[in-house]
Amino acid sequence: MNINTNTNFNNIKQTYLFSEIAARVRAYEAEHPDAKIIRMGIGDVTLPLPEEVVNAMVKACQEMGVKETFRGYPPEYGYGFLRDAISIHYADLGVSIAPDSIFVSDGAKSDLGNLVDIFGNNPVIIPDPVYPVYVDSNTMSGNKITYINGTKENGFLPSPAELPEGDHKGSVIYLCSPNNPTGAVYDKKALTAWVDFAVSTGSLIIYDSAYEAFIAEDDIPHTIYEIPGAYECAIEVCSFSKFAGFTGVRCGWTVIPDSLKSGEASIAALWKRRQATKFNGVSYPVQRAAEAALSDEGISACVKNINYYKENAKLITDLLNEKGIFYTGGSNSPYVWLECPEGVGSWEFFDKLLNEVQIVGTPGEGFGKGGDRYFRITAFGSRENTMEAVERLRNIL
Amino acid sequence: MNINTNTNFNNIKQTYLFSEIAARVRAYEAEHPDAKIIRMGIGDVTLPLPEEVVNAMVKACQEMGVKETFRGYPPEYGYGFLRDAISIHYADLGVSIAPDSIFVSDGAKSDLGNLVDIFGNNPVIIPDPVYPVYVDSNTMSGNKITYINGTKENGFLPSPAELPEGDHKGSVIYLCSPNNPTGAVYDKKALTAWVDFAVSTGSLIIYDSAYEAFIAEDDIPHTIYEIPGAYECAIEVCSFSKFAGFTGVRCGWTVIPDSLKSGEASIAALWKRRQATKFNGVSYPVQRAAEAALSDEGISACVKNINYYKENAKLITDLLNEKGIFYTGGSNSPYVWLECPEGVGSWEFFDKLLNEVQIVGTPGEGFGKGGDRYFRITAFGSRENTMEAVERLRNIL
Repeated sequence: MNINTNTNFNNIKQTYLFSEIAARVRAYEAEHPDAKIIRMGIGDVTLPLPEEVVNAMVKACQEMGVKETFRGYPPEYGYGFLRDAISIHYADLGVSIAPDSIFVSDGAKSDLGNLVDIFGNNPVIIPDPVYPVYVDSNTMSGNKITYINGTKENGFLPSPAELPEGDHKGSVIYLCSPNNPTGAVYDKKALTAWVDFAVSTGSLIIYDSAYEAFIAEDDIPHTIYEIPGAYECAIEVCSFSKFAGFTGVRCGWTVIPDSLKSGEASIAALWKRRQATKFNGVSYPVQRAAEAALSDEGISACVKNINYYKENAKLITDLLNEKGIFYTGGSNSPYVWLECPEGVGSWEFFDKLLNEVQIVGTPGEGFGKGGDRYFRITAFGSRENTMEAVERLRNIL
Repeated sequence: MNINTNTNFNNIKQTYLFSEIAARVRAYEAEHPDAKIIRMGIGDVTLPLPEEVVNAMVKACQEMGVKETFRGYPPEYGYGFLRDAISIHYADLGVSIAPDSIFVSDGAKSDLGNLVDIFGNNPVIIPDPVYPVYVDSNTMSGNKITYINGTKENGFLPSPAELPEGDHKGSVIYLCSPNNPTGAVYDKKALTAWVDFAVSTGSLIIYDSAYEAFIAEDDIPHTIYEIPGAYECAIEVCSFSKFAGFTGVRCGWTVIPDSLKSGEASIAALWKRRQATKFNGVSYPVQRAAEAALSDEGISACVKNINYYKENAKLITDLLNEKGIFYTGGSNSPYVWLECPEGVGSWEFFDKLLNEVQIVGTPGEGFGKGGDRYFRITAFGSRENTMEAVERLRNIL
């Protein structure tokens, strides 16, 4: 066969982060078959789905087995019942988002990856370190990326003032808050600076709020639409994965306000066309499960799970405070992002933790150059394991 | 905002086929509130899911509510249990497809749309009339499309010999058999001609076999891998939608053999990278439902439903035979594609059926220029409605 393949794929860094981690853990286990390894590396939830959610999903599955209640093709942008529920969720956060500006999908990762389809080539601004999907999906499309560095000095919250010289007109800017991997959160003032910058340069912000439900402190926006001007410059992508433990259920959504236009082109109209052509909607039982997660009982149950994870995070950050180790995250995020002690590299620190106290975390350089002296620990484990991990860490940090 | 949008989107025909149909039906209903309209337009299933499938999906939902059996992120390319089951399904069809050449997704439409991501610009060959996703997804990527016409003379099964002059080297060719909308099926000889053509021109075939389960006759390939040479030139996209009634459940798969390479580039490796970046796997309960559909009991139940639809199709084709009206499909397909009597246009015939006998079908021109004197009727309705529709049609055809 001799056809043209997408040569931009050659420009994607093959980091093999998680496979390298797995290989090192396997090698350690082979040599130490009795070791009790505690895994705090992967950003996946561990608590089961709330009962309300399971019941709704089971009921929907049973409806599919009965002629009178069977449902075929779902609406491409989501069932009305779920778009309405998400719209009410925004109203509870104090912002107005119409149901028909909400596009339901099988997850935030799909939307973040597929959004590039509706744009031409634009300059792209991405923080470093960050969730790799923004970089990889833009690299696949041949877009030129300008990185803006998260550092100890800016608390891993780079501002537009730190951008390299240039006019940056018509850029596509990716922001993630609470951030994966750093757990850092933009407050209203800092996020306003980004919205003002986008408006003044005619740029678009793609705002990833997948970890919104972990926000605890006042003055931290739960949605970018709390910021004046955002309706004219921002797409928001969110998810049930971390809010309701849906990593294995698969449901997310994207908000594109009608007011979001580039010249005459409606961004929502482009996305509608993209989704109607290349997507066929989300499984009916999954949408019923998501609706249940947004019911009063569902929210209570989800918040209970989130608080469980956040108590884990506090155990970790208490120790780092005690040891005087710099970190971000933990209080509005399931992630704790810590500076590797004594200036060691992130893979070196990974090996130290694995070999000395049998704890697996994620080396920061897996998320970009700016992470090469940092380390991500997640709070998604059990209380028992987290407590034991803290005790082990206390002895060596 | 002033960013570059994908201007290829401007080149997509805004057919509004189904919204135009809905508008005409609404207008008729408003004037005739007591009319009993029979809908035979949309290609959606109507029978409920088999009990085995519902039970498996319910059990998986319940597992998600228990800590010990909860599952987070699914494997990006599908659970081993489902890839194995699909591999066994191919073995039952007499071809060998390794589980790791099978990529599970949320549906054939997603894969058919997203596959363009991994290719550069290539000449594209698409039959007309055809399922619109091939045309629209390639138009969105700026690919140049050569149409090859299905006609009464070739039975809506165009062969490579009918291509316009040119070398056609390195083309991407879309084939759909059993075809949507015409119901026509390539036999072994005709499909071999396409595989030989692809091999001799270094081209790729993207083979859409979503309606495979409706094939009844011998000598009709159920998968393109029955044809020698296909492992070196073909991707196959298939679905649980029509086989198991999963239009609302959402599950499909794509086969990319390891032997499929363009020069040094492995097509499977490109797809793996695309899916790992822009997709996060299929809902666990959905994958368990799909596995159950491929169990012995599941297959029996699915075949029973398919036979029900095919008996509907036979009622329709018996009438067309009686009336001497040319058609394709029906015997290996849920679709019957008939020539509009007396040379009328497809929208004119639509209006005639709606106004005179209150039957809704799909005007052929919605699937391409070659459909402008044809009409699609589906066999997915109830037996009662199909019988009544046939009686009504008998009086006016």
